[in-house]
Order: sequence, then C-alpha cells, then structure tokens
Amino acid sequence: MSKLVIVGTVAFDAIETPFGKTDKILGGAGTFIGLAASQFNVDASVVSIVGGDFPQEYLDLLADRNIDISGIEIVKDGKTFFWSGKYHNDMNSRDTLVTQLNVLEHFNPIVPEDYKNADVVMLGNLHPMVQMSVLKQMSKKPELVILDTMNFWMDCALVDLHEVIKHIDVITINDEEARQLTGEYSLVVAARKIHAMGPKYVVIKKGEHGALLFSNDNVFYAPALPLEEVFDPTGAGDTFAGGFAGYLAKMNDFSFKNMKKAVIYGSTLASFCVEKFGTERMIHLKKDEVHKRLNEFKQLTQFDIELT
Amino acid sequence: MSKLVIVGTVAFDAIETPFGKTDKILGGAGTFIGLAASQFNVDASVVSIVGGDFPQEYLDLLADRNIDISGIEIVKDGKTFFWSGKYHNDMNSRDTLVTQLNVLEHFNPIVPEDYKNADVVMLGNLHPMVQMSVLKQMSKKPELVILDTMNFWMDCALVDLHEVIKHIDVITINDEEARQLTGEYSLVVAARKIHAMGPKYVVIKKGEHGALLFSNDNVFYAPALPLEEVFDPTGAGDTFAGGFAGYLAKMNDFSFKNMKKAVIYGSTLASFCVEKFGTERMIHLKKDEVHKRLNEFKQLTQFDIELT
Repeated sequence: MSKLVIVGTVAFDAIETPFGKTDKILGGAGTFIGLAASQFNVDASVVSIVGGDFPQEYLDLLADRNIDISGIEIVKDGKTFFWSGKYHNDMNSRDTLVTQLNVLEHFNPIVPEDYKNADVVMLGNLHPMVQMSVLKQMSKKPELVILDTMNFWMDCALVDLHEVIKHIDVITINDEEARQLTGEYSLVVAARKIHAMGPKYVVIKKGEHGALLFSNDNVFYAPALPLEEVFDPTGAGDTFAGGFAGYLAKMNDFSFKNMKKAVIYGSTLASFCVEKFGTERMIHLKKDEVHKRLNEFKQLTQFDIELT
Repeated sequence: MSKLVIVGTVAFDAIETPFGKTDKILGGAGTFIGLAASQFNVDASVVSIVGGDFPQEYLDLLADRNIDISGIEIVKDGKTFFWSGKYHNDMNSRDTLVTQLNVLEHFNPIVPEDYKNADVVMLGNLHPMVQMSVLKQMSKKPELVILDTMNFWMDCALVDLHEVIKHIDVITINDEEARQLTGEYSLVVAARKIHAMGPKYVVIKKGEHGALLFSNDNVFYAPALPLEEVFDPTGAGDTFAGGFAGYLAKMNDFSFKNMKKAVIYGSTLASFCVEKFGTERMIHLKKDEVHKRLNEFKQLTQFDIELT
C-alpha cells in the first residue's frame, strides 16, 4: 500500500436539483476525493483550508475514516469556501448561483511532514499554482501524480495549468474540457495532444456516457452504469478521481492493466455518489454494496465472443 | 443458420461532410443492413423497390454477396428514392437537403416465396404500415423480429408505429428517439416503458457513446470504438442493425447472452462504415479486418477485477 496525499477544497455546498434543494451541506473536491479513497483504507492525508465556521463534526467525519486531517488549516476568523448551484432538468448542465472563495483566496497548502514522501499525489481541482506548490513540497518524486482540473483554469490560468501538467502522470478531465484544452473535437486526437503536454495517462470523463482511459498505445472505455435517476451529480467527478487514486494507492501498481481497474472502481463509486445529495450516500456506503455494484459493472460490460 | 428477411430502402444518397461531398451514390437502409449481414454468409433476402434509373451493377453488388434480390421490385418507368444531407462540423447532427420519395411512395413490399418461412425478420426504417405488411406475409411466426425506426414516424404515424411495435421482439432506436417515444429522460425508464409496448429487447443507440441493450432484468453497454475521425456517419445505424441481425441469424441463438455478442458485432461493423463515404468501406471490408477490430473491442472493454 502507498501513502496518498490529496489536495482539494473542503467546503460548503448548497444544491438545487429538480428533486429538491439543500441548505449549506458538506462539500468540496477534497472531501469527495477523501471519502472515495477511504473505501480502500489507504493511508491518506487531505490538504485543505477551512474557516472557523466549519463544524468539527465534518472534520471528525473524515478523521473517523482514517483520513489524516492535520493538513487541513483552520482559519479561526475566516469563513469556509461556499459554492451554490442549480441543476437543469436534464442534470447534465448547471448554473452557479454563488461562489464565495473566503479562506480559499489565500490558500497556501502545507503537506504534513509525514506525507512528504507519499507515493501517490492526487491534485484536486484548484488553481494550478496551488497544485504546483504541493508537488514542490514532496521530499521525493512521487510514483504517480494525478491531476483534476476544469475549464475555469483554462480560461484564466492557462499558462500555469500547462506548467503543472508537465509534471503529472495522469490527468482527469471531462470531454468538453479536453476539447477546449486541445482545440480538437475527436477525443482520440485530443488525448494524443494532451499526452504530448506531459501526462502518460489521460482519463476523459463523459458523465452518463462513462470514461475513457488513454495511454500512448492503449485505450479503455468504462461505461457509466445506466441509472434510473440521477439525484445530484455534485461531487461525482471528484468521487471518480478519489476512487481511481485510492485504488491505485492501495494496489501500488501503476500499470495500464491496473489503471483500467481503477477506472472501474472510480465509476462504481461515482454511481453511488449521484444517488443522494452531496456526500450523504458516500458517508453511509458499505463495502458489500460496492462489491455488488462492481459485479453489476461486470455484467454490464463483459462478453465472450467467437469469431465467425 | 436461420433465414433472414430484410426490408428497407435501396436508394441513392448524396452526402456532404466537412471532409468532402459525393454525387449520387449507393445508399439506403436495406443496402447497409444487407451488406453488414452478408459478413456472416447468412441466407438473406432484401425486400425493396428501385426505379429504372438504378444501375444493375448496384444490384449485382448485393447478389454477389449471396443476398437474394428477387424481392427488390424494379419499376422501369419510376425513379429511385433519393436522399441528400449535409453533416455539421461535429458530425452528430445533419440537415436533410433533399428527400425524393419517388417509387418509395407506392412501395408494397413482396416477400419472396422462399423467404416467407424465415426465422429472422429485420424491419428497416420505413413507414410502420410497410413494416407491418412484411410481418403479415410470413407463413409462420418468425423466431425473432427486429425493428428499426426513427423520430419521423413518431411525428406522423405514431398509431401505426405502436401497432407494429406490439408484434416485434427487438427494437433498435437512438437515445433521443427513445426519449421522444416514451416522454422519459432516463434511458433505463424509457427502456422499461418500451418493453411494456411489446419488445422483449430494447437496443438504444447512442452514436459515439455506444449502445445499450436492455431486457426485462438485464442491461449491457457496448461502447463505440473511439475513432480518430468520423468521415461519414450515413448508414452507421443500419450497419449496426444489419450486423446485429446477421449475427443472430447466423448463430440461431436468441438468448440475452448471444444478443450481447450481436451488439458487439453490430458496433464493430458500424465502426468501419463511418470511415468512408456511403457503402465504400463496407463493400471492401475483409473478414480479418473485422476480427482484428473485434479484438480491439475486447481490449477496449474487458477487465478483470479483484474485490478489495
């Protein structure tokens, strides 16, 4: 098993979907990644920042899952990052209603001493310079660095994004973002251009259509489990990334073959995340539920064919 | 091996894509279905209608592949059905430029005597009453009836469409059409509603995102092979249906397990179809190319996972 460092927001979300709305609830990329990775009982640390308004019970919730929270800075007189959004009827698009950066505006991540030699680093969606700062603190070159990002940073911090992308092994990105980053419509061509920017592995997330994993000469397609209802998509991408990173850290095997399995684990965990608001489903998720759904994934995708 | 009856247009297409444009070339659902099914050397008959302007060499092209063409009526003083369309830059949408029904306007399909006892019937996209007329001519109840349709018939012949749907075993339909037919956004719910209309199996085609196969208690997801370039999508859906029907007729096994394989064969053949204009790629397709791509499909989708 490898040590895992996760950097990402720990935050408040308020969400509105066609099925209902929430007040301020627990959210943030670091939270979703951590919860997903904790399914594998890996030795993980979440590096983040919150304000004095952040409930101790939310921090305990992470700590109770053996997630090291010593890297979560608490700014006593600051307020926690807050995001609010409203999903459209098809659940594939959303409007951001509120973004209050608060303490995140001056976030200077500090990797705990014990985790500076971590083998796996998961850089959650944040300013590319913040992501880079985490990499610079590592005392040895990690075996695997995974980066998640979004279109926002392509719009306003593209140079910094290109710089951090040079130093990573895996990027997770959605289809529209892959197209924006490369100017290519074909995801095959887009993935090739992203390889040339640095990452050996490119994971393109396609929401309800699944996820593609590219390496230089291989491609793997994990469909998403067809769901009767998507209740709240918030955190699904982060949960995917957390499952992906957590499985790889657990197995300590960074081959393409193992990365395929990591994609399946990520997709499986994400399929739970969307069933309830925010982190609710992930917090109460049991191992036997995960195993049952992995078997559903097998049924969904596996076939045996004779050549005629 | 089962006998296979195919009904569908045999026609002229003129196609414009971002990569170029064609004059009138060979097209039509019946043509694409027949060419795909002929990969399996099944005993198939195409039932259709053409005008006196239709080149004998196009008919020979089908006959040379052991497709029975005695059910293709030639109206000497009529003109062949002609469709012209232009694809947009993303290749996922198109405008119809010209539709000349010509002889198709009075198409009264006649199933050849030798094929009235066929085990498998593939009803290509046509007016539902034409599809129904083929079913009524069968001398015994076929083992398997597969129907392809499109939104056009939902708009202007919905009652007839519902009637024919009652009498079929498998429907192939794209995602937007499944939503239109049922009024449900979730494809899982849409498939369940379509089951209730009659078909035991529902295949939902999602273009570049693959295809879903539903039966009452099973679901299978075949992704589409990620392609560097889609040259011309015309006929891809028909090629999928023809590969699906041809494989099932060849194997004479209509279980869910075998239908999964049929979906993979259909997807594989469709991935070739889009590589060139019209039928060009399908006409020159070799068996070893198909086998090679089936193996790519395996690589693309198959995984082996340990439960952690």
